[in-house]
Amino acid sequence: MHITKLSLTLFTLIFYYHSQAQKNVKLISYVHPLIGTEKMGHTYPGAASPFGAVQLSPETDTISYDLNGKYNHDVYKYCSGYRYEDKTIIGFSHAHFSGTGHSDLGDFLVMPTVGKLRLNPGTATHPEKGYRSRFSHTDEKSEAGYYKVKLNDYNVLAELTATPRVGVHRYTFPKTDQAHIILNLIAGIYNYSDKNIWTYVRFIDNQSLTGYRQTNGWARTRTVYFAMKFSKAFKTYGQQNNDHQNIYKGFWRKFDQNKNFPEIAGKQVRLYFDFTTQQGEAIEIRLAISPVSQKNALENLEKESTHLSFDQIRKQTQEDWNKELNRILIEGTEDQKINFYTAMYHAFISPNLYMDSNSEYRGLDQNIHKAADFTNYTTFSLWDTYRALHPLFNIIQPKRNNDMLKSMMAHYDQFSMKMLPIWSHYANENWCMSGYHSVSLLADAIIKGNYNGDAEAALQACIATANKRNYEGIGDYIDKGYIPAENNATSVSNTLEYAYDDWAIAQLAKHLGKTKVYHQFMKRSENWKNNFDQHTGFMRPRLSNGHFKKDFNPLDTHEQGFIEGNSWNYSFFVPQDPHALIQYMGGQEKFSAKLDTLFFMHLPDKFFAKTQDITREGIVGGYIHGNEPAHHVAYLYNWSNQAWKTQRQVRHILEKQYKPTPDGLGGNDDTGQMSAWYILSSLGFYPVAPGSEDYAIGSPAIERAILYLENGNKFEIEALDQKPEHVYVRKILINGKELKNFSLKHSEMMKGGKLTFYMSNKPQY
Amino acid sequence: MHITKLSLTLFTLIFYYHSQAQKNVKLISYVHPLIGTEKMGHTYPGAASPFGAVQLSPETDTISYDLNGKYNHDVYKYCSGYRYEDKTIIGFSHAHFSGTGHSDLGDFLVMPTVGKLRLNPGTATHPEKGYRSRFSHTDEKSEAGYYKVKLNDYNVLAELTATPRVGVHRYTFPKTDQAHIILNLIAGIYNYSDKNIWTYVRFIDNQSLTGYRQTNGWARTRTVYFAMKFSKAFKTYGQQNNDHQNIYKGFWRKFDQNKNFPEIAGKQVRLYFDFTTQQGEAIEIRLAISPVSQKNALENLEKESTHLSFDQIRKQTQEDWNKELNRILIEGTEDQKINFYTAMYHAFISPNLYMDSNSEYRGLDQNIHKAADFTNYTTFSLWDTYRALHPLFNIIQPKRNNDMLKSMMAHYDQFSMKMLPIWSHYANENWCMSGYHSVSLLADAIIKGNYNGDAEAALQACIATANKRNYEGIGDYIDKGYIPAENNATSVSNTLEYAYDDWAIAQLAKHLGKTKVYHQFMKRSENWKNNFDQHTGFMRPRLSNGHFKKDFNPLDTHEQGFIEGNSWNYSFFVPQDPHALIQYMGGQEKFSAKLDTLFFMHLPDKFFAKTQDITREGIVGGYIHGNEPAHHVAYLYNWSNQAWKTQRQVRHILEKQYKPTPDGLGGNDDTGQMSAWYILSSLGFYPVAPGSEDYAIGSPAIERAILYLENGNKFEIEALDQKPEHVYVRKILINGKELKNFSLKHSEMMKGGKLTFYMSNKPQY
Repeated sequence: MHITKLSLTLFTLIFYYHSQAQKNVKLISYVHPLIGTEKMGHTYPGAASPFGAVQLSPETDTISYDLNGKYNHDVYKYCSGYRYEDKTIIGFSHAHFSGTGHSDLGDFLVMPTVGKLRLNPGTATHPEKGYRSRFSHTDEKSEAGYYKVKLNDYNVLAELTATPRVGVHRYTFPKTDQAHIILNLIAGIYNYSDKNIWTYVRFIDNQSLTGYRQTNGWARTRTVYFAMKFSKAFKTYGQQNNDHQNIYKGFWRKFDQNKNFPEIAGKQVRLYFDFTTQQGEAIEIRLAISPVSQKNALENLEKESTHLSFDQIRKQTQEDWNKELNRILIEGTEDQKINFYTAMYHAFISPNLYMDSNSEYRGLDQNIHKAADFTNYTTFSLWDTYRALHPLFNIIQPKRNNDMLKSMMAHYDQFSMKMLPIWSHYANENWCMSGYHSVSLLADAIIKGNYNGDAEAALQACIATANKRNYEGIGDYIDKGYIPAENNATSVSNTLEYAYDDWAIAQLAKHLGKTKVYHQFMKRSENWKNNFDQHTGFMRPRLSNGHFKKDFNPLDTHEQGFIEGNSWNYSFFVPQDPHALIQYMGGQEKFSAKLDTLFFMHLPDKFFAKTQDITREGIVGGYIHGNEPAHHVAYLYNWSNQAWKTQRQVRHILEKQYKPTPDGLGGNDDTGQMSAWYILSSLGFYPVAPGSEDYAIGSPAIERAILYLENGNKFEIEALDQKPEHVYVRKILINGKELKNFSLKHSEMMKGGKLTFYMSNKPQY
Repeated sequence: MHITKLSLTLFTLIFYYHSQAQKNVKLISYVHPLIGTEKMGHTYPGAASPFGAVQLSPETDTISYDLNGKYNHDVYKYCSGYRYEDKTIIGFSHAHFSGTGHSDLGDFLVMPTVGKLRLNPGTATHPEKGYRSRFSHTDEKSEAGYYKVKLNDYNVLAELTATPRVGVHRYTFPKTDQAHIILNLIAGIYNYSDKNIWTYVRFIDNQSLTGYRQTNGWARTRTVYFAMKFSKAFKTYGQQNNDHQNIYKGFWRKFDQNKNFPEIAGKQVRLYFDFTTQQGEAIEIRLAISPVSQKNALENLEKESTHLSFDQIRKQTQEDWNKELNRILIEGTEDQKINFYTAMYHAFISPNLYMDSNSEYRGLDQNIHKAADFTNYTTFSLWDTYRALHPLFNIIQPKRNNDMLKSMMAHYDQFSMKMLPIWSHYANENWCMSGYHSVSLLADAIIKGNYNGDAEAALQACIATANKRNYEGIGDYIDKGYIPAENNATSVSNTLEYAYDDWAIAQLAKHLGKTKVYHQFMKRSENWKNNFDQHTGFMRPRLSNGHFKKDFNPLDTHEQGFIEGNSWNYSFFVPQDPHALIQYMGGQEKFSAKLDTLFFMHLPDKFFAKTQDITREGIVGGYIHGNEPAHHVAYLYNWSNQAWKTQRQVRHILEKQYKPTPDGLGGNDDTGQMSAWYILSSLGFYPVAPGSEDYAIGSPAIERAILYLENGNKFEIEALDQKPEHVYVRKILINGKELKNFSLKHSEMMKGGKLTFYMSNKPQY
């Protein structure tokens, strides 16, 4: 009680401070970017600014780093370039996915070394054979917007910070006349060794260079331009060009192109820069990137970084982070605050800025465009993020979300396929995962009043995307109402997710008064029924002859009609109509019992052997929290009249699946979706079906929160009698009136006010 | 006499027609583009507009076309893609060098076929195994701006024309439901098989596509964008992507990307388009190129071609050619006119337009630039063209030459090396051949009043280029006055050409009143003396210890200190100071005798075995006309008081080295240098040392000529008593006054007026 009182006082103080003094509370100390870097979280510990284009982060190993030139098919582990388990660092590169299950990026790897120049990275077991260095977590510090590590093999202190478009390095050297900085243009993250298509480098003077790197990785046709400026002139510079044919053929005698030669190009280029340093002398690097041109990269560098010192940039970026974190103030335990603000941090990393300071960007058509009235973003992991991340943005980042939707519409306009993004990054469509969930984002934002673009055009783009017959079974889906299993390895996932997406389109059509479209897509939204097997009570792959597939096991994940999930999880995927699903599953009682079985079953080990993406850490019973398809499932008890089980289960997941440690995430963070689940569920509600105004009420884990809305309103949440064991909600008031049906409306929240939970250790049946 | 009278009358008529009616005489009928396509001329027969960006021409074989995937190191023969000797055509591509001795380009190869679709070109011996077709020269027609051929294997008539930036195709098909048009994006000209870096294609609709092709050929970092539009919608389209990894990896199931899939990318892409055609139905294609972007390519296509029919474009381009040819009207024999106007045609093909219709172009820094006040050009084969082509332009194309110099200055400004172009094309420096002859172009044009840029900046660029110590022996050249033979395989060529270039810089400095620079570079211009061996009387490789190299044979060409020439030819390369050379060679008599020996020696066969670039066809005695270093040598008799021998020799070369037949050129046309020699020598004069106002008088081969100068003046040349055997000049009048010393001043010519040669069959000693 004493603690609660104190925190109440503190909270009131913070509240006052916030509203009166217009100054932000220092929250970045709660951000621990190392959370999720161990095991399967796939986050990274380096420096980035909120939604920034640059993610400057250490790499401990990636595909390219095998002494024998072999490449590693197990790059999955290295999607973010860094694993907490590793003992060596190979360098610091400028672009990283946060929490993905697929790999790419890792551009412009920079590494300081001392002594004999080595341009090969060496191996984890033999770091001395290359330029990599051993490091220890005790010499490592990772903050929002700042990273520091001691490189033990060279006695060099490496510090990183970043502006939106510029990676900023500070390397403090010992006294030596053999200080080197390596720029490895071969390095990158991906599971094919021939990712490098072309690199070009042009020296401006003895401190500056520009160029580009072109890759054929996950993004098939991708070019990143760069401009790099050192704080000190290099004594000499040179290259190791592994691709000798790219030296000016036949005319090599005219120059020594390997040393101090100002134009370098080829497929396999590694550069080095030599310095003499005094004890404790710091060499700084600014490396700006651009999707458009060297000229723009240089302009980005100049506009964002040349007038500021390393420390000033760090301060500014950390202030930016702090400002973003201050959108939600919470009170709770220290661990909760760490989890919560780290989740906020992870949720605000991507989608990423993909536009130069002059508003130019590269479109899906590989032409250069200028964003007239929006900020262009990339990295849309939509199968993950439509569920909670973008709904979270609709509450707390509506302006940015509006820009993201405009970026998606630009994608649609520019793409030869005339489809909205599926999984898109760096002006490429990767066609990853099921569904066409862009439509969910558009419907959700437009219905919630958060889109200032042309809503009719958005609806048309949704319809066009949903009618792309030759994409991933859509033709069959339209004709038969399901996708024959023999034609498609993920036929059931696809049908279920299309059906939800179609419901979202219908909601948007209704919102815009397009009744015909509404009815058409509402009908399509019932297609989940075609994969529901009344006999087993599960969603089940179906053949083109109409029969369900034999040899069906609802626990199977591998090529059984599902992706990143099994029938046990996917069978609950009818977020658009839980009532109908309950009916199909035999009524509320049977449904609840089935949910209980899911959450309390014991999965055999063989289940995990078949798939890399589903891990024991991410499992609660048979419920897979480490992957997304069942993220709404804990909330479905609300529909079967057992809200107390939702409350219990949500609190259990919050407790077990999120820890303030490097191994604290039970699965890939998936560009913030796992974090968004945490944030929303901690606050006590969750968007089961984005495209609806309704949030399902769960059980808040925090004591209090204030959401500072962009419309100027404040929405306060308080959980009275909050305790770890008080997971049940006794009563809920909204602005003093009782809230019924465990359902909260978005528009009500946007008006500001207060939501009061009365917590209890006893379920309310 | 009768003939002369008739031609006089005709001439007067033409003159009248020209000056009064302001309408051009139809001269393009004298242009036979097939001249030089057999043996070593390396010209091409296809369609281009004057100095145009597109050179749309048939290819009979190139590097990429080996059924077994092997590549052909003997690509030298296929520098222009077409050999008159060949029996099959593999298609029509959009970029070709005219007359070079090095290969590149060959982009966007288009081929119509009928019947079974084949995407492999097949071989010359087994054309039926691929898409190539047999053809016959009897079914072939090649004009300036128009080309036609019957593809016998398919009964398809292929016709080509071009605007500056658009290749225009018309294929007339038989009745078939299996008509195909192939777009081979692998095809190209070069002697390495891995030239292709990346290709990207985006379909706009069922008639249009855009994209780009990126190569690492002779130009190391080169991208050409294209936009392609068909006159008729294709039924289907598809690709054969030899590089399966570039199909969206792992997600190939989502689409069939090989057929009707609108975005294609990879390293090895061949596309096809299917049609059904009626008997005699023509399908037209417009394919525009751009150095900047797909968007610009599309804009080029629209601005230059969409409002015009094939026949209208052909007419317009042929009118453009006619206008260019009308800059000089000549009278002479039919063969002379064919040789002369074909030479004019070949001289006006390159340098090539390298700028979009919106004035954007790609610079040496690989950034996009906008040409504010000039037209940007590329393809600078300067070692060849500084000698006569650009001096010809200073007379008859001064505006274009001014733009070319501005393009060279832009190159200098944008290039990380801060050097003027050596051998440059498509935003790349190829570092080919000796010397830094840009300085000659700048000096010549500025001294002749044909440069409206910053002359001081031009001089500074010349000085910077000439002082680039680490380039091709320049450091040694500056320090020692020659380049030690052990350090450089073409040490003597380099020294001799640098010395001439330095003289040109000195002339420019003098012109600008920079006395100190003048003296400095005049001193450098005497460096040829350091390679002159008094003992043998020849230019001779010298070692770093100061001794001349042993085992010296002045006939040797291979790695003996010379390039595309031997000491016999290079020993006369002191165009800046023939008087001093004569003195060094023992006086006028000995000098003339030595020239006689050069022109009348018999070369042993073994001489030709060692080098690909010097052929028996290009030889007169030991004088190598097929290569450039001795192009001024026939005129040197003027300095030894034996002008009659110059007259005899020039007429002999004009007669023997130029014929109106496919094998009519004795060596590579070298982007017009061979042709420019013909034009100027036919008119009776030649610029022995560009950078000087003086032309050396030879012996005119034509009967009369009028040069229509851009300043509005006309300069008339008449050769009275002209006959084949009247090779000697009895008397010369300029505007009625006698011209002395066999020397004509540029400024005098520019005033307009008349130069009268009195021809004779007897030399005037």
